[in-house]
Amino acid sequence: MTGSLVECVPNFSEGRDRRKVDAIASSVASVAGISVLDVTLDPDHNRSVITLAGSPDAVEEAAIRAVARAVESIDLNTQTGVHPRIGAADVVPFVPVRGISLQACAGLATITGEQIWRRLGVPVYLYEAAARRADRVNLENIRRGGFETLRDLAPTDPDRLPDFGDGKLHPTAGATAVGARKFLIAFNINLETPDVSIARNIAREIRTSSGGLPCVKAMGVRLESRNLAQVSMNLTDFERTPVHRVFAEVRDRAAAREVAIAGCEIIGLIPRKALVGSDEWLPTVEDFRTDLIIEDRLGL
Amino acid sequence: MTGSLVECVPNFSEGRDRRKVDAIASSVASVAGISVLDVTLDPDHNRSVITLAGSPDAVEEAAIRAVARAVESIDLNTQTGVHPRIGAADVVPFVPVRGISLQACAGLATITGEQIWRRLGVPVYLYEAAARRADRVNLENIRRGGFETLRDLAPTDPDRLPDFGDGKLHPTAGATAVGARKFLIAFNINLETPDVSIARNIAREIRTSSGGLPCVKAMGVRLESRNLAQVSMNLTDFERTPVHRVFAEVRDRAAAREVAIAGCEIIGLIPRKALVGSDEWLPTVEDFRTDLIIEDRLGL
Repeated sequence: MTGSLVECVPNFSEGRDRRKVDAIASSVASVAGISVLDVTLDPDHNRSVITLAGSPDAVEEAAIRAVARAVESIDLNTQTGVHPRIGAADVVPFVPVRGISLQACAGLATITGEQIWRRLGVPVYLYEAAARRADRVNLENIRRGGFETLRDLAPTDPDRLPDFGDGKLHPTAGATAVGARKFLIAFNINLETPDVSIARNIAREIRTSSGGLPCVKAMGVRLESRNLAQVSMNLTDFERTPVHRVFAEVRDRAAAREVAIAGCEIIGLIPRKALVGSDEWLPTVEDFRTDLIIEDRLGL
Repeated sequence: MTGSLVECVPNFSEGRDRRKVDAIASSVASVAGISVLDVTLDPDHNRSVITLAGSPDAVEEAAIRAVARAVESIDLNTQTGVHPRIGAADVVPFVPVRGISLQACAGLATITGEQIWRRLGVPVYLYEAAARRADRVNLENIRRGGFETLRDLAPTDPDRLPDFGDGKLHPTAGATAVGARKFLIAFNINLETPDVSIARNIAREIRTSSGGLPCVKAMGVRLESRNLAQVSMNLTDFERTPVHRVFAEVRDRAAAREVAIAGCEIIGLIPRKALVGSDEWLPTVEDFRTDLIIEDRLGL
């Protein structure tokens, strides 16, 4: 177990033309030591997400190449979709996986962000853990109004001036938000009941926004095909609120309503250290794959 | 003109044993793309300074190797000298030269500092532009009391806890302060007078601390061997107060006292962009060498 491992999850404003997205992924894969873990296209939002990982230096270079390819191929003046966006490469978050802190990932985001401006001429806003201004910790403040509004305001409104670059957005590629955040775990628990109100109530009880567990976003949804209710969650800091803590909370609250757990789902990957204390929940993961663990996928 | 260029100026607590310092310099020079620009030993202070430059990634690796070698060879328990110090590798500043901002160098300092802790077990304090706490912008606050005091206080005093590492200092190598700062230009102007009081008065008038020019430290000294007075200066931000502005100020104030300029000295190197507006002062530099300019020294 040596070396630092960083994940990067850039989002691009192209979710329909697979060739364009594949070309971006190829430019990432061309960097030595980089693994492309996932490529997802969302045609409705006309948006795609590439998940890549490697050493800090390699991830920096891969992110710059990905943004460069997106700048060449995506024109925001003709791109449409319901998701708010400011750039061809819209957001580029750096995520610590192993042997590196959030703070160092913020440093990496700063270095990479500056190079995106210097090499590609795309203005950069630093967000979340990399933010230099309190009002940019929240990405939505940066993205408010999208490309068209930001293009009008950035040249004159000091609150909308980028961290790197002048106020003039790139004419076709806009601007890019570059940041650092903790590893996000998408964790769902399926309940042995078709009654979605139970999932909704449990979600409301446990989520941070209503005074529940720290760093948990949760909602109740109905899985039509399986006739089950699901508590669908994002864990934004698994070191603060571990998966097993969330699992126990949902299990107990379901049991109090005489509902059993049907199983769990991990969407995407998790770092190995998120498995601490997983004896109870891991065996219930449906469709368990050994390559669920990011280090295993990378052969580390 | 492509690529980012960073200078790093680590200080080590060994200024007497040239073999030890040369071994540290060799470990730096072993990194591809790194140039060692200067190695200076100060036997009185028992301290040495290595100046190196290269791309951000290369400088990061070189700095870590230099600290590693210092950790192996310097034992603070037996080292003595009049200079306050907390570590075998005492301070490691990263300095933007070209194509990179101070802010990105702070990011680089953060990444490097964390690796120094993780790979070498030496706790790290982040200072100046890389500081995470307001009271660590000033390096002297970190270094107060030196190794022996910090070793006692760091485990229990939250104000002395390192940014990376626990409160237990390395038993022989102490801790290291890692930071980012602007390029410092050591600039002296010799006056055609043996009267040091004139140099002292001009220094007092122009320095920041007495309300003079921003980012200028200055004092008047006497050059015994040449029977001249000198205004000896450090310019801590040549983009804010350029060399030509300082030169004109000293020249005019000397002229008002009917004293001419004998010549100028640049100690060490300067970045090419510091030559903007240098038509007047550059020709007066005594012992001018073309490799005075850092990019020329690097063959860039």
